[in-house]
Amino acid sequence: MEPLYIRIHGRDNVAIIVNPEGLPAGTIFPCGLMLSEAIPQAHKVALRDLEKGAAIVRYGEVIGHGEQSIARGSWVRAEQIAMPAAPSLDSLPMATAVPSRLPPLEGHVFHGYPNADGSTGTRNILGITTTVQCVAPTVEHAVRRIKSEILPHYPGIDDVVAITHIYGCGIALDVPGADIPVRTVRNLARNPNLGGAVMVVSLGCEKLQPSRLFPSTESLPMPSGEPYVIRLQDEEHRGFGEMVGAIMRMAENRIKELNDRQRRLCAASDLVVGLQCGGSDAFSGVTANPAVGYAADLLVRAGATVMFSEVTEVRDVVHLLTARSVSVDVARAVVREMAWYDDYLLRGGTDRSANPAPGNKRGGLANIVEKALGSVAKAGSTALMAATGPGERVLSKGLVFAATPAGDFICGTLQLAASMNMHVFTTGEGSPYGLAMAPVLKVSTRTNLADRWPDLIDVDAGRIAGGEATIEQVGWEIFHAILEVASGKKKTWAEHWDLHNDMALFNPAPVT
Amino acid sequence: MEPLYIRIHGRDNVAIIVNPEGLPAGTIFPCGLMLSEAIPQAHKVALRDLEKGAAIVRYGEVIGHGEQSIARGSWVRAEQIAMPAAPSLDSLPMATAVPSRLPPLEGHVFHGYPNADGSTGTRNILGITTTVQCVAPTVEHAVRRIKSEILPHYPGIDDVVAITHIYGCGIALDVPGADIPVRTVRNLARNPNLGGAVMVVSLGCEKLQPSRLFPSTESLPMPSGEPYVIRLQDEEHRGFGEMVGAIMRMAENRIKELNDRQRRLCAASDLVVGLQCGGSDAFSGVTANPAVGYAADLLVRAGATVMFSEVTEVRDVVHLLTARSVSVDVARAVVREMAWYDDYLLRGGTDRSANPAPGNKRGGLANIVEKALGSVAKAGSTALMAATGPGERVLSKGLVFAATPAGDFICGTLQLAASMNMHVFTTGEGSPYGLAMAPVLKVSTRTNLADRWPDLIDVDAGRIAGGEATIEQVGWEIFHAILEVASGKKKTWAEHWDLHNDMALFNPAPVT
Repeated sequence: MEPLYIRIHGRDNVAIIVNPEGLPAGTIFPCGLMLSEAIPQAHKVALRDLEKGAAIVRYGEVIGHGEQSIARGSWVRAEQIAMPAAPSLDSLPMATAVPSRLPPLEGHVFHGYPNADGSTGTRNILGITTTVQCVAPTVEHAVRRIKSEILPHYPGIDDVVAITHIYGCGIALDVPGADIPVRTVRNLARNPNLGGAVMVVSLGCEKLQPSRLFPSTESLPMPSGEPYVIRLQDEEHRGFGEMVGAIMRMAENRIKELNDRQRRLCAASDLVVGLQCGGSDAFSGVTANPAVGYAADLLVRAGATVMFSEVTEVRDVVHLLTARSVSVDVARAVVREMAWYDDYLLRGGTDRSANPAPGNKRGGLANIVEKALGSVAKAGSTALMAATGPGERVLSKGLVFAATPAGDFICGTLQLAASMNMHVFTTGEGSPYGLAMAPVLKVSTRTNLADRWPDLIDVDAGRIAGGEATIEQVGWEIFHAILEVASGKKKTWAEHWDLHNDMALFNPAPVT
Repeated sequence: MEPLYIRIHGRDNVAIIVNPEGLPAGTIFPCGLMLSEAIPQAHKVALRDLEKGAAIVRYGEVIGHGEQSIARGSWVRAEQIAMPAAPSLDSLPMATAVPSRLPPLEGHVFHGYPNADGSTGTRNILGITTTVQCVAPTVEHAVRRIKSEILPHYPGIDDVVAITHIYGCGIALDVPGADIPVRTVRNLARNPNLGGAVMVVSLGCEKLQPSRLFPSTESLPMPSGEPYVIRLQDEEHRGFGEMVGAIMRMAENRIKELNDRQRRLCAASDLVVGLQCGGSDAFSGVTANPAVGYAADLLVRAGATVMFSEVTEVRDVVHLLTARSVSVDVARAVVREMAWYDDYLLRGGTDRSANPAPGNKRGGLANIVEKALGSVAKAGSTALMAATGPGERVLSKGLVFAATPAGDFICGTLQLAASMNMHVFTTGEGSPYGLAMAPVLKVSTRTNLADRWPDLIDVDAGRIAGGEATIEQVGWEIFHAILEVASGKKKTWAEHWDLHNDMALFNPAPVT
């Protein structure tokens, strides 16, 4: 492979090395640039001489200032870059650059499971909600038996999932922030892929009582009147065997209802696609995320909902998000979520610079500013239609910012609570990530990862770096893969291996 | 059954109803007391007329003051009791009432697995530590295959446990409090029941790097030099199948070492018994906890380590703990843990009154003061020899306060990190609780729970309430059951059903 770098924007004074093995000192590019030292793949080279204090520009934005002078052709290392302050939340452009609507995209369909509440499942799963960790092993024991004894008789069911977590007791409920984990558990039970067939296993004495989880029949995803709670401490359950038996009986009733459903032709507008990146590198913002961003634009044009998240990974580009918000109200909602999170991190003695992780740096990302610029590429180019708090349901169509922490599983869990029925995950360093409640389509930023993990990566966006495919081509590929997977015609690798990461609830309140 | 109440202390002006169905209005006790209204089991009756504002006394201590006057024979309800302020931490008696040493108890032994570091296992388990949630489903997939393909050839191994958690990335590491989850994961790997055979599965790019987990060879439980980390992102693992294969190969090497060990005769002093209560009721402090306290005294007399925990459940009796601390230094350590926790709860907008849970109140506990008085009975009557922070290893013999939150699984996880090799759990409302890494002996506070859950409760302390057994008798029964279970001669019900609650890490720092 010829020596190759990628410069994203005309203003950029750094570029990243494409060649998988990196490039040695003395390498000369067609433009005449010569490397004065060896630079690994995905790391940055200075395209011109940079004075001490000079702005270092990538994606057309300042990612920091030189701690020292850096000569043209040198490796621009993380420790040479002083990170700028995060944009102030007080003077942001509010809905000043709303993108015009892209032409509608018609005729794209998938086969899904329409639900009574108007949502649509891409899978037909029985979810068993738990109110407290005490009941988890009992429910898991029952689920193992349901899978081996009951499920073989009901071929229409994709899976039975125990929605377990480490929340529910030993917690403060009436304090700031506690509404987040509570609504998350509630809204997980309402996820479109669970078909509205709610069933809750409670211990009995826990703080998070079922009545707190579903305070009204309106908050339940199914018609009222039917029993949906099993309390293990109730008199009628005489011993472990009877507890398990009660769970199995209620589960079989739910399974019968769910099994009768058939996939129906649905418009692509019934998709609620959650986007996320994990194990990002400097290619994330060049290959996988722009390709996913292109697919996001296609989905929005087709009328679907597309959500992106991860507050610390958009905090440094908040000025871009508020400007493209469809209204001042939406821009204000974005600011509200950022402010809340700034404050949360400050109380804990940190800020957005606790992100990135060591692997991100190894992958060439100097700091959270550079990471954020790459991360937000997932969000494509359409107007931002709404911004919601962690664990809230997303009811808008179009592009939505669903605020969450950036940790992969907390984010995935909160996107499931927000009604996600399909997940797209981009990765540079690689993660064998999976969720039980929604298919996860994994997109690699580099071809060498896709080659090394052929049985984990679903789509290789690394081809973009070498010029073997365009962003548009891979974007369409992702779009079509989403429709195929949503229809159940294709399983993702995470589904193939049954990779199910546990729910990770976001609880900013103290435990007691 | 005749009408029966239990009054704990001569100063008490309330007592609790023993009869399982409660007692109707008009019931007359042998002492002449007549109930003016029906009172449920475990709830309190006024033994004399109480003026508005009068101290309400149970266990010889003030649990609150009357919000209104309460007539003799009435039900003393939670809402009629104003809770007192927690004892100030500034003027506590420090080591002023150190109990004298009880006579040593000799000749009690069990069969355990002596470890190189001087600790002793009660089980022979391979634990696979994970640094980050990303790897959890991969490790769990490998563990399922190890159990079905490898373990049948090694009958000396009790179990293979994936030590998974939702920590490791998307976290702030260099902030106050982050040392707690980090040392917890480290010290879980060093638990005596894992035989010093450490093995770590890392993703590669996560924040919690293996080198952070084990910064020196001294922090490792096994001899240095041997590889103990598998990084899934390393070049050599080409795909999911090879990752799983690598985990299985390292696991089999560890299993071979562990399988060669034999149980040896060990003194009872090699036990490290963690005590906990969950789903407590007003009987907890009358039956199960005093019986466990008696067993705790026997264990201490035999030279063992006994730890109790749950800061919010001892906060209101801190004056009793500092007084019985063996030295002013130990008393100061108790105060340090209380102060840290007061501050932690205050920052989150709450205090110790967020405990108890609804079920505790249903079970007759008016408030956290009454709950704490019952809870501390578990700690028996010996001098307090040490107080440690959450997740720290306990190295002292005798009675130790290992500070933890009161949530059952966070507490259990931290006690495992503190080196617990045997767990005793008392419950009134009932919990099908279990841990993967140590046997859990469950003790009921009431006979009706033991009757209803015959295949979950190991020891019924409820017999004490009706006079069928004494505290001493049940205490000895628990002591002998601990030795039998520790020897592997007897399995607890939690082991019988494989009830394994997930690790629940205590992370007071923010997620990012």
